[in-house]
Amino acid sequence: MSLAGFDARHVRLTVEGRVASILLDRPERKNPLTFDSYAELVALFRAAAADDTVGAVVLSGAGGNFCSGGDVHEIIGPLLDRDTKGLMQFTAMTGDLVKAMRACPQPIIAAVDGIAAGAGAIMAMASDMRLATPRAKVAFLFNRVGLAGCDMGACAILPRLIGQGRASELLYTGRSMSAQEGLDWGFFSRAVEPEALVEAAANLARQVVEGPGFANAMTKRMLAMEWSMSVEQAIEAEAVAQALCMTTNDFRRAYDAFVAKRRPVFEGD
Amino acid sequence: MSLAGFDARHVRLTVEGRVASILLDRPERKNPLTFDSYAELVALFRAAAADDTVGAVVLSGAGGNFCSGGDVHEIIGPLLDRDTKGLMQFTAMTGDLVKAMRACPQPIIAAVDGIAAGAGAIMAMASDMRLATPRAKVAFLFNRVGLAGCDMGACAILPRLIGQGRASELLYTGRSMSAQEGLDWGFFSRAVEPEALVEAAANLARQVVEGPGFANAMTKRMLAMEWSMSVEQAIEAEAVAQALCMTTNDFRRAYDAFVAKRRPVFEGD
Amino acid sequence: MSLAGFDARHVRLTVEGRVASILLDRPERKNPLTFDSYAELVALFRAAAADDTVGAVVLSGAGGNFCSGGDVHEIIGPLLDRDTKGLMQFTAMTGDLVKAMRACPQPIIAAVDGIAAGAGAIMAMASDMRLATPRAKVAFLFNRVGLAGCDMGACAILPRLIGQGRASELLYTGRSMSAQEGLDWGFFSRAVEPEALVEAAANLARQVVEGPGFANAMTKRMLAMEWSMSVEQAIEAEAVAQALCMTTNDFRRAYDAFVAKRRPVFEGD
Repeated sequence: MSLAGFDARHVRLTVEGRVASILLDRPERKNPLTFDSYAELVALFRAAAADDTVGAVVLSGAGGNFCSGGDVHEIIGPLLDRDTKGLMQFTAMTGDLVKAMRACPQPIIAAVDGIAAGAGAIMAMASDMRLATPRAKVAFLFNRVGLAGCDMGACAILPRLIGQGRASELLYTGRSMSAQEGLDWGFFSRAVEPEALVEAAANLARQVVEGPGFANAMTKRMLAMEWSMSVEQAIEAEAVAQALCMTTNDFRRAYDAFVAKRRPVFEGD
Repeated sequence: MSLAGFDARHVRLTVEGRVASILLDRPERKNPLTFDSYAELVALFRAAAADDTVGAVVLSGAGGNFCSGGDVHEIIGPLLDRDTKGLMQFTAMTGDLVKAMRACPQPIIAAVDGIAAGAGAIMAMASDMRLATPRAKVAFLFNRVGLAGCDMGACAILPRLIGQGRASELLYTGRSMSAQEGLDWGFFSRAVEPEALVEAAANLARQVVEGPGFANAMTKRMLAMEWSMSVEQAIEAEAVAQALCMTTNDFRRAYDAFVAKRRPVFEGD
Repeated sequence: MSLAGFDARHVRLTVEGRVASILLDRPERKNPLTFDSYAELVALFRAAAADDTVGAVVLSGAGGNFCSGGDVHEIIGPLLDRDTKGLMQFTAMTGDLVKAMRACPQPIIAAVDGIAAGAGAIMAMASDMRLATPRAKVAFLFNRVGLAGCDMGACAILPRLIGQGRASELLYTGRSMSAQEGLDWGFFSRAVEPEALVEAAANLARQVVEGPGFANAMTKRMLAMEWSMSVEQAIEAEAVAQALCMTTNDFRRAYDAFVAKRRPVFEGD
């Protein structure tokens, strides 16, 4: 199935060239997630895995905010009436979103302006690269709503992004990480002014899709696979993965271009 | 057993409200550890695990220093006379201190002024959050005393706090990490002037104990459990853990407070 | 076998005191690697493992650059003619270089001036400590040549040095990391002017070899072994390793020196 044909109803999906853009678009509420938008996002990232005409995904929010997380009235309220099984269905589903984001072969670029809170902070965290605006605020505020910091992979992923100590402090206090902290700590790659954010994310996405698609997907796969391997295992796994990449046409295209002193044009095969 | 009833003889223990404070108190020697104080600290953190009236622990040193580590005369000298079995008993016991600190459900806040050396540096490292003063100096100086950097978990924990390269340099050279380096590298959350340190640590502890106790303990447990899991395993484990937290009264309290536009009062159940 | 007797033909090897220095020395091409120099470097680091008169290794490049990586004409071109088995032989061999660097007990200090690209960036990454000059540029540029970022352990090691997010950005874009970024992110320990680099690396190496050799080697071994252990496993492993170090003469030498108020002279046993 092609992503371009995906009928998104709860988020906005556009595909331009080889870049898919997902816009969380309920700006009057700072783009909260609902049961429906969660399910649609899972389906969307799973569909991306089957569409190799798309080489990168940009994730952003409308109206000056990224995402305020699970809606208090539409998610937290109803959860209070669920039984054990129903709660587990919810947390398994939110976890599935992060799994789908990690499993889709395309690098995901989060463009974070304003608030990224709760599951919104998680979606930024679960992306492959993150751009910010100076007013971005990322809040892993789970303990403010009576919950643990271990939500959707945060206790595993956040420490690897910003360090175990900083992650601990954010998760125990629930406080916001400022854009400057996010830059200093390696959460964000770069900050740009709000009016330049969409274009900066699109530029980064275009840079990614101009790269070798098969190899980029292998990079994403191996960054995930090697997470808890020993160094020796990782080296072995990379030897196999890179030998495979050396059989692609893109490897030859790069060499031919170098010899001819021109830029390579990669085709992803 | 309640921590308030713990008869501490080698360190000072005070319990105020839901915060327990442990003061290393031999300032004339910069608060070194002895066989006795090691054993008492292990017992104390194990007792904390059984006292759910305590929600956070503050660890600090008297007289302008945190802890100078294992006393040269009271520990290193006697170790030189021990046989293999006796040495292993010592290193197993020091390791037990870090295990007890990681296993107690309460977040531990280290308030580091002046010297934190050897096992003192380890206790700061093994805490959950760390505050510094500008004159704090943290020295993983094991190779200065003829030993390896692999002491009490340092080769595993320190790289996750400050990065593998910085940890390697500290452990191979035995040099001190300055307060500024510790801040820049994510070892310390914040620095305050020496006269403000006790209060800053107490404030952070109060902020922690005002949070949802069951959920905070789950955060600590999962940060430890997910250390060497794959991302997929971590997401699965968190789905179960967070579903459990959603059955607590604190989750409902947060929602009720939000709807009523007031601050939630968590009770830890 | 002693390293001093190693007949290096493709790199320059010098042994002064207890420090071995390896110079990549084809400055007219920015010190690229060839099949021959790869094989020789593997042999050299393996030989180092058998020579306990050497306590540290310095790795650097001639003529203002560190290493430009696998030579386009001497490596990439020939690879394009290899079959599956031949490609796997190459990637297994390059992986063996990182394994040999991690397995040799001596801490390796990379002195990085100018370009460190591709396998050159990997050799810097696979060292234990890294010094830079302000003009150092480290480029994990694999995707620029049509390949994946998972080369020689990069997807496992680089995230532990600089964080998962920064590593991802470098590997997906192939862009250079500047010396300043490398310092801020924990890749480099320090930057010195180009004319001071050799001496700075030699000083650091001398500082290492003046330390306790058996214990330093144990630190290197445990930093590797604990990579994917749980915290509990790591603490157990360190208890055994440190108890062993407490049976060395260097542990006693440090104590005797302390009591006599003089600097210890370690002998590595």
